[in-house]
Amino acid sequence: MRESALRVLEECKQIAAMSEEPGRITRRFLTPPVHKVHAHVRGRMEAMGMAVRVDGAGNLRGLWQPRGTASRRLLMGSHIDTVPNAGAYDGVLGVVMALEWVQIARDLELPLAVEVIAFSDEEGVRFGVPFIGSRAVAGRFDRALLDLKDSEGVTLEAAIRAFGLDPDRIGEAAMDGSAAGFAEIHIEQGPELDAEGLSLAVVTGIVGQTRLTLEFAGQANHAGTTPMRLRHDALAAAAEWITAVESLALATDGLVATVGKVIVEPNADNVIAGAVKASLDVRHAHDAVRASAVEKLADGANAIAGRRGLALQRTGQLDQPAVPMDERLTSFLADAIEAEGMPVKQMPSGAGHDAMVMAARVPTAMLFLRSPGGISHHPAEAVLEEDVEAALRVGRRFLQRLAADVG
Amino acid sequence: MRESALRVLEECKQIAAMSEEPGRITRRFLTPPVHKVHAHVRGRMEAMGMAVRVDGAGNLRGLWQPRGTASRRLLMGSHIDTVPNAGAYDGVLGVVMALEWVQIARDLELPLAVEVIAFSDEEGVRFGVPFIGSRAVAGRFDRALLDLKDSEGVTLEAAIRAFGLDPDRIGEAAMDGSAAGFAEIHIEQGPELDAEGLSLAVVTGIVGQTRLTLEFAGQANHAGTTPMRLRHDALAAAAEWITAVESLALATDGLVATVGKVIVEPNADNVIAGAVKASLDVRHAHDAVRASAVEKLADGANAIAGRRGLALQRTGQLDQPAVPMDERLTSFLADAIEAEGMPVKQMPSGAGHDAMVMAARVPTAMLFLRSPGGISHHPAEAVLEEDVEAALRVGRRFLQRLAADVG
Repeated sequence: MRESALRVLEECKQIAAMSEEPGRITRRFLTPPVHKVHAHVRGRMEAMGMAVRVDGAGNLRGLWQPRGTASRRLLMGSHIDTVPNAGAYDGVLGVVMALEWVQIARDLELPLAVEVIAFSDEEGVRFGVPFIGSRAVAGRFDRALLDLKDSEGVTLEAAIRAFGLDPDRIGEAAMDGSAAGFAEIHIEQGPELDAEGLSLAVVTGIVGQTRLTLEFAGQANHAGTTPMRLRHDALAAAAEWITAVESLALATDGLVATVGKVIVEPNADNVIAGAVKASLDVRHAHDAVRASAVEKLADGANAIAGRRGLALQRTGQLDQPAVPMDERLTSFLADAIEAEGMPVKQMPSGAGHDAMVMAARVPTAMLFLRSPGGISHHPAEAVLEEDVEAALRVGRRFLQRLAADVG
Repeated sequence: MRESALRVLEECKQIAAMSEEPGRITRRFLTPPVHKVHAHVRGRMEAMGMAVRVDGAGNLRGLWQPRGTASRRLLMGSHIDTVPNAGAYDGVLGVVMALEWVQIARDLELPLAVEVIAFSDEEGVRFGVPFIGSRAVAGRFDRALLDLKDSEGVTLEAAIRAFGLDPDRIGEAAMDGSAAGFAEIHIEQGPELDAEGLSLAVVTGIVGQTRLTLEFAGQANHAGTTPMRLRHDALAAAAEWITAVESLALATDGLVATVGKVIVEPNADNVIAGAVKASLDVRHAHDAVRASAVEKLADGANAIAGRRGLALQRTGQLDQPAVPMDERLTSFLADAIEAEGMPVKQMPSGAGHDAMVMAARVPTAMLFLRSPGGISHHPAEAVLEEDVEAALRVGRRFLQRLAADVG
């Protein structure tokens, strides 16, 4: 497995060099370096005897079909687009690892077909909408998306054509009934495994997410001439509320709640803030817990605003239910980890992934690899060789179990 | 007095129309509408028999010298520049009122010379430095200021020349030993008089002021994948501190402390804030109270940062001592108010004024008129006719007392 693990890391490094920007890893949906990634991955797939195609949404897809078998196929994969100035592993690792799992299935002569998908877009950087690739595979691509424009005014439709593909064939990207499941391998992008000294985790589901904006409207006034008791300070109100947001999240198991953005008017040293817009991002694996937290926080904001003589306005941006992973496939992963002598860490994913979109159509499981330092979306993003080896060993057991089960 | 009060209000309205921007009151240092204001005020001064000149710093100065007297003169005045989109009374009221006080002195044939100064700059909007006019009169104009540039790249020196003045003669603007005092009439620009239902207040001094910036440096991270206990959230830290700033100020008599500006990095909905710069503005009439509050707040920020694993950096921008008004002149004003049957409200000024600069060179007093709603630096800024009348009655008593005292 060591040779295989080193190859995984080397492949991620090679693909990292295929970038829109010299010296930085930036690879948005169907930009020129994606041609290089496709050529590289296609070469490896074909050398392994896989049948390769690129679908109308720009997903590169390689099918491993063992001779003499007609079993339902396992879908695997992750995305090959990146955020600007990214690391080398977010997405790409899942594609490269999937090829190694295919290699394992081939070496073991398992009666299991595997289709590896390098999704064209998960980050949503170029067109402001994520999951373009997996939406198409899940049969949930809305053609209205074709009119989206990137920062240079190029439509999604034109971008697909410029890449040499036919947007009218996006419908053909949709999976048929032959899929037995979807498995995604991804870096955790968080600090939990690293903090606990673990290599791997089984993902129980993708957390649900609420995003909203609260606007506290008070009264801008002179910082020198307005006594404290006659103020309607929107920033003091927002600060009190931000503290309450953090307190509630700390007190609620599994809840994360973040105020990441504040816009202050007029935002001047010597003027009491008249208005503050504050974002709220709340996530939890259980929708009821999340909904209850959001209401408590909104009620808290109302109480703070009322007591201070401020107006409060709430605008919702997102209310996305949690997506559970498939129990059977997830238990196969957990059993494989246990059989390899490792503690079975089960955790929800706080971030969205292609697996979230795929889970709506097919039983789906996810395996996390430790992110050293919890670092992601950053050039310092890393993966440990020992964790890759562990994931390969787990893959061998998982694929054997699945082949026996599907067969 | 009613006729005189109505004239004051009418004069303020007429001068408000002399603006850089149609429909808004904006009149920065020595911009073209200042020529109109000078012509208008000069006309009134000359009609009253005053000797008029414009000094090298652009201050319009009219001297009322009663026949047969050689007494030391009372200086009076305020500024004629404004903030952008200003009200009609901040500054201008003090110039127009001073002319009415001269009229009173003239009518009463008081043996008192009065020089009325329309200061060219107090707000500091055009060149980013306030009190250009009063600095020159107080003999504290630093010639290095001449190199300052406005937003269009015009130097202060060039602006003075373009107005038709000689910057080499700024030194001649400095007051000589003939001044017996300086009196400034100004709107409160705060809500206290309005809240207490009073027309006038005697200013006891200009509060001291500390301005500094605190930068909380934590760790930007993913809002979904970073558990609450592993965060170093710079905005949550800043929010906790902003709440503490407000609490201390509420608990300390006469203290105002304001966080009016925050700059959050990266300021995105779904990213934990990595760094926050927060401004702090602290004011109090007693320097020791202010210094103690600033140290408590800085210590509090250090404690918050330390507990949360953040770095903290403090940058000072201003540390300006309180400026007391002259006891004798101030008591003359207080006695006049009492003699007119009004409660004597004494209060510090939370804002800087020309009187602050003048006080360094000459005994100085200030009289505040109520600001309805506490509104200032805003088109809705107002002054009540009854308050103007009260200030005229107080002026009559004050001038009689001063003439007797100086004579």
